[in-house]
Amino acid sequence: MSFFDVKHTSEGGGRRAELTLPHGVVQTPVFMPVGTAATVKAVPQNVLEDLNAEIILANTYHLYLRPGHEVIRRLGGVHRFMSWDWPMLTDSGGFQVFSLAKLRKISQEGVEFRSHLDGSKHFFSPEHSMEVQIALGADVMMVFDECVETPASWERTRDSMGLTHAWAERSRKYWVEHRDEVPWSRPTHEDRAVMDGAPDSVARFEGKHQALFGIVQGGMYADLRKESAERLVEMDFPGYAIGGLAVGEPREVTREMIALTLEHLPKDKPRYVMGVGYPDEIEEYARMGVDMMDCVLPTRAGRHGLLFIREDPKDRRSAVVRLNIKKAEFAEDQRPIDEGCRCMVCRRYTRAYLRHLFSSGEPLGATLNSVHNLAFYLETMGRVRGDLVGSCVDGGSGDSGLAVSF
Amino acid sequence: MSFFDVKHTSEGGGRRAELTLPHGVVQTPVFMPVGTAATVKAVPQNVLEDLNAEIILANTYHLYLRPGHEVIRRLGGVHRFMSWDWPMLTDSGGFQVFSLAKLRKISQEGVEFRSHLDGSKHFFSPEHSMEVQIALGADVMMVFDECVETPASWERTRDSMGLTHAWAERSRKYWVEHRDEVPWSRPTHEDRAVMDGAPDSVARFEGKHQALFGIVQGGMYADLRKESAERLVEMDFPGYAIGGLAVGEPREVTREMIALTLEHLPKDKPRYVMGVGYPDEIEEYARMGVDMMDCVLPTRAGRHGLLFIREDPKDRRSAVVRLNIKKAEFAEDQRPIDEGCRCMVCRRYTRAYLRHLFSSGEPLGATLNSVHNLAFYLETMGRVRGDLVGSCVDGGSGDSGLAVSF
Repeated sequence: MSFFDVKHTSEGGGRRAELTLPHGVVQTPVFMPVGTAATVKAVPQNVLEDLNAEIILANTYHLYLRPGHEVIRRLGGVHRFMSWDWPMLTDSGGFQVFSLAKLRKISQEGVEFRSHLDGSKHFFSPEHSMEVQIALGADVMMVFDECVETPASWERTRDSMGLTHAWAERSRKYWVEHRDEVPWSRPTHEDRAVMDGAPDSVARFEGKHQALFGIVQGGMYADLRKESAERLVEMDFPGYAIGGLAVGEPREVTREMIALTLEHLPKDKPRYVMGVGYPDEIEEYARMGVDMMDCVLPTRAGRHGLLFIREDPKDRRSAVVRLNIKKAEFAEDQRPIDEGCRCMVCRRYTRAYLRHLFSSGEPLGATLNSVHNLAFYLETMGRVRGDLVGSCVDGGSGDSGLAVSF
Repeated sequence: MSFFDVKHTSEGGGRRAELTLPHGVVQTPVFMPVGTAATVKAVPQNVLEDLNAEIILANTYHLYLRPGHEVIRRLGGVHRFMSWDWPMLTDSGGFQVFSLAKLRKISQEGVEFRSHLDGSKHFFSPEHSMEVQIALGADVMMVFDECVETPASWERTRDSMGLTHAWAERSRKYWVEHRDEVPWSRPTHEDRAVMDGAPDSVARFEGKHQALFGIVQGGMYADLRKESAERLVEMDFPGYAIGGLAVGEPREVTREMIALTLEHLPKDKPRYVMGVGYPDEIEEYARMGVDMMDCVLPTRAGRHGLLFIREDPKDRRSAVVRLNIKKAEFAEDQRPIDEGCRCMVCRRYTRAYLRHLFSSGEPLGATLNSVHNLAFYLETMGRVRGDLVGSCVDGGSGDSGLAVSF
């Protein structure tokens, strides 16, 4: 069982694959819901399981600040902390340090910053990011990178990329030397079983490690993207992310940068585009050969009353439309959010009720809206996985690839 | 099948009974979670079903203001509006008019008040409260009563009680003349099925009506309580509530008022104490012969991080303790909230995680805390029901009476 097993590749470059991680096998292309503070906002873990969210993301920066990575290490890692026994990925904290934290001071060594929560002073280096991510113990962790501001000049982007490469090298070194320190590789006999009443056993994770992905930078410059991809591939990571996109640039530029970067990444390793995007974007990128994506959009939009539906509910390939549930026109609308959606929210609740919950500031509104949007994203990816098998160029077994159960 | 079927009565006066309502049979004594705005705050309906919450309460005042009773009537009643197919009860709006609304002007006719939401002017009379409650269509509705301020003199309490009795008579008259107007008694063919894909049929509700309960007032005066009970019993309601308690008086007084009022209420009709209380209180009152209770405490306390547990988790009869989840001592506590509780939260999550959610202001915290507290209340009532059968004085079948499934 290889780490990344490409089953089919379509003419467009999209791949139907399986990613085998310590906590389970992920069917790709996959969308990963974001659980910033070890919780996908307003959505209970059993609902994520019901949605068949095969892998979720947690944010290193947030968990480092609160409750602290040493606390989570002592509690057995973030899986046990949040009672999530399926695969997880952590980012490096880099993006948040550069977008949320205050008074950053960057050197070759790392970044000094102040917490956005209480102003306390902290220092992140590649080694420290790895240490934190090993303590958290997600299945996939990310190298610590500098995220350049946007727009940035070619020179500024090249220099930042150089720093990112040096940090990637140092991240990789630390990971190789310390990967046995992940909490679940060495559970103590005193560990209390949280999951399913059965203790995590040493046997289950024997010989298994966290994977570390490199991050291609290079801003909006084709030559730098190429150089960054090649440089990282030389370092030989288990997988590669394309970072620094969806930061305000036009969508054509995002697509162009993804397309040209993919050309320089190995076909037998997973490719991850960080922080995208709208449902039609994730579909488009998956068909181009991106295997993993994450975004706060489904949950954040849900909390703001924005719901994704298909223009023609019966045609799941029709255009994506955003429905603003607070509009008066829904006050007596007895239809579900999306008449073609079979999620638990659309099976049970009406637009009229969801509008009422939102208008009344009721917390259940945020939960139900988020669940529908996540279901919409996961349904979209399930359909794409099926399509990629149907259109494969290297022989298809007829396996639909649809792991999403609704 | 009678409306209220007392199966067993214990020496202490506690009764194990069944209350047959249009939307189902309720095992009593029962605790009713409060769903103010047609949602038990932060708890999805399917979770309430999993908890076996056999009957929930909704607030007439809130639903009248938002989304409006006419909207809910057109949508088929509050059951269909919120997708809840089990029994429900609505209060009369009286308590909220007297506690939440602004600039009240009370006359024999009714109460003029301003909405706490937008300052708009409204008028509630007994007839209007009935009209609103019939539009909402809960299984049980309550007469419109005046809630006297506390403390109040004997004279003031007597006068208020007189008004309440006149309003009870008018409420009853309106209910008798208009009870066929409840939305579920006449579903149209165009009605879209919301519940389980099956349309509510006329047959299901044929010959069934909402029940109307009278409310005994009389403040903290034994003679007035007696007079109020007798006066209401003369009017002959399907059930009787004891109102105006748990409004700041010492707990001994609450108990005394309940005890003496119960003496004057018929044994073959349900008795409901409104707005109580702590878990040990609801247990105590149930053993005294109270059949129904409701309180916002489990959900409100949950949202504030206060969790109910047993002092000795193995002994479910031991004292009730409140655990404040935000305390630092729980930061690395891997135990569930209550080691003897089998609710879905205690089976899955640790105190450490729940503390983290609360400290981080994560919405999932409110949901999980509320679910545990509701489970604790419902478990308590399930145990009391079992005890009442065990200690019955009129012959027991050995039926445990435990409808709570966890």
